Amino acid sequence: MVPAALPAIRSLRASRIQVQDSNNVGQCMVCQEDYCNGEKVTLKDANMLVFVTPHQFVNGICKKLVGKIRQDATAISLIKGMDLKPEGPSMVSKLIKDSLQIDCCVLMGANIANEIAKEQFSEATVGYAENKSLVDEWVRLVNTNYFLVSAIQDVAGIELCGTLKNVAAVAAGFVDGQQLGNNTKAAIMRIGLNEMRAFCKMLFASVNDATFFESCGVADLITTCLGGRNRMCAEAFAKSGGKRSSDELEAEMLKGQKGVLTAKEVYIVLSQRGCLQMFPLFTTVHHICTGRLPPSDIVRY
Amino acid sequence: MVPAALPAIRSLRASRIQVQDSNNVGQCMVCQEDYCNGEKVTLKDANMLVFVTPHQFVNGICKKLVGKIRQDATAISLIKGMDLKPEGPSMVSKLIKDSLQIDCCVLMGANIANEIAKEQFSEATVGYAENKSLVDEWVRLVNTNYFLVSAIQDVAGIELCGTLKNVAAVAAGFVDGQQLGNNTKAAIMRIGLNEMRAFCKMLFASVNDATFFESCGVADLITTCLGGRNRMCAEAFAKSGGKRSSDELEAEMLKGQKGVLTAKEVYIVLSQRGCLQMFPLFTTVHHICTGRLPPSDIVRY
Repeated sequence: MVPAALPAIRSLRASRIQVQDSNNVGQCMVCQEDYCNGEKVTLKDANMLVFVTPHQFVNGICKKLVGKIRQDATAISLIKGMDLKPEGPSMVSKLIKDSLQIDCCVLMGANIANEIAKEQFSEATVGYAENKSLVDEWVRLVNTNYFLVSAIQDVAGIELCGTLKNVAAVAAGFVDGQQLGNNTKAAIMRIGLNEMRAFCKMLFASVNDATFFESCGVADLITTCLGGRNRMCAEAFAKSGGKRSSDELEAEMLKGQKGVLTAKEVYIVLSQRGCLQMFPLFTTVHHICTGRLPPSDIVRY
Repeated sequence: MVPAALPAIRSLRASRIQVQDSNNVGQCMVCQEDYCNGEKVTLKDANMLVFVTPHQFVNGICKKLVGKIRQDATAISLIKGMDLKPEGPSMVSKLIKDSLQIDCCVLMGANIANEIAKEQFSEATVGYAENKSLVDEWVRLVNTNYFLVSAIQDVAGIELCGTLKNVAAVAAGFVDGQQLGNNTKAAIMRIGLNEMRAFCKMLFASVNDATFFESCGVADLITTCLGGRNRMCAEAFAKSGGKRSSDELEAEMLKGQKGVLTAKEVYIVLSQRGCLQMFPLFTTVHHICTGRLPPSDIVRY
């Protein structure tokens, strides 16, 4: 079987693909930025749509897809990141589902792209809402001997993990920037994981603890806190002693990195709900990013 | 308040201490190897006993303490490691409790000693059986602004975590030795955490998922897999391509390290229960340690 979605996971810049699956899954179309640029693609035969694009483009892509896809098509979103508005998070899967009137699973996990490109062993989690046979098709399509995929019935929890872990990674970067030890880093990652869990449950009562033991939870947190760019930027900021201006900070840390922006959005949500005290790590990350607290405060609770 | 138990956590070689607590907790006696060597110590006033010693000495120490301690004394064990026999694990807390007829809490967590000695921010978990007011005393005694302690009603789960994480750390070392990326390491750590969870639940139905979100669970796993000696030894073994003889391996890896021995004990328990297939990581670690499989098999499932 050709793992149709894997090229998309390997690199967010992979060209769109059309793969005839030997097990008659059908044709698989990866909808990309390219589509936005007006390139002509044929969708009429695609019954499984893989979405891989920065999340801010999804709305525009979906608008162009309306009326052009098969009625029995289903989708999966590999997109990490979303806007967390006070009125609720803008889940990418929900946007796709609502605008195209199709089922949409999500795939998240400890998936740094260039490592998957080397075919190094990785795992991922596919989240589904109700249709078990559909998610089984996705798992069968994506799973390989070096890319193990599990299915979990918790779209909201899985998708939120992919966004919130970036806030924990910023905290981990502050720890690294001060050259604190592994005890401290492990403690901050643990607190980050638990605040992710609490935040998800606050927004969606359906979120299950089991989700955080999956690749999308603890494993994605680990890989992001060890090697991710959010962590690296925060490390550089902390090494400067937090003395740079917020303009410099934004220029360095916001360049394509979601952690700082997500921390701000999380802060606004928590503030409006009167829940800041329940989330000391998330709150402190935001205050450090905005210069209200020094990076050394990441370990003061 | 003097954090009486902290010197013991800071270094396993710390001298025994007697600290008069300003809040009338009473005197605190750390029972150490020194005691085994026949040094004279005064126990008659001690109402809180801290046990810090390699686990193989606990039985002998307890025998010497019988009849010499206060009837209202209570204990806490900071000892990570135990023998996992087919008939059941030899829990250190149970040994102390049964032989001295006193309550015994446990303290585990992401606590690499030399980092705590530098007073870098850390967390720990105290496990208790039933007596909440007793564990609150221990938490009050140990907690500082850089050493945050939480109480959880799960002695078995917490104490087993302190032993089983070493098997996961050996697996992480095999990953490092092959210079695989962070996706792989995160995946192996995640699988390790879940096999720890499943193993604990198999032995004790009372073990709670929440335990693994505490410092004794995910955080101790992280710090051990990043910097621990079990990980380091396994890395060196994997770098050799697994080509050394088992004698060389034992000389290098077993020198005071519990991971390899624990992996063997876990394997025997699983084998006797017919559960090897449910624990592919633990099983593979043992097979790699004994030379039956190459280190590269740590990622084949």
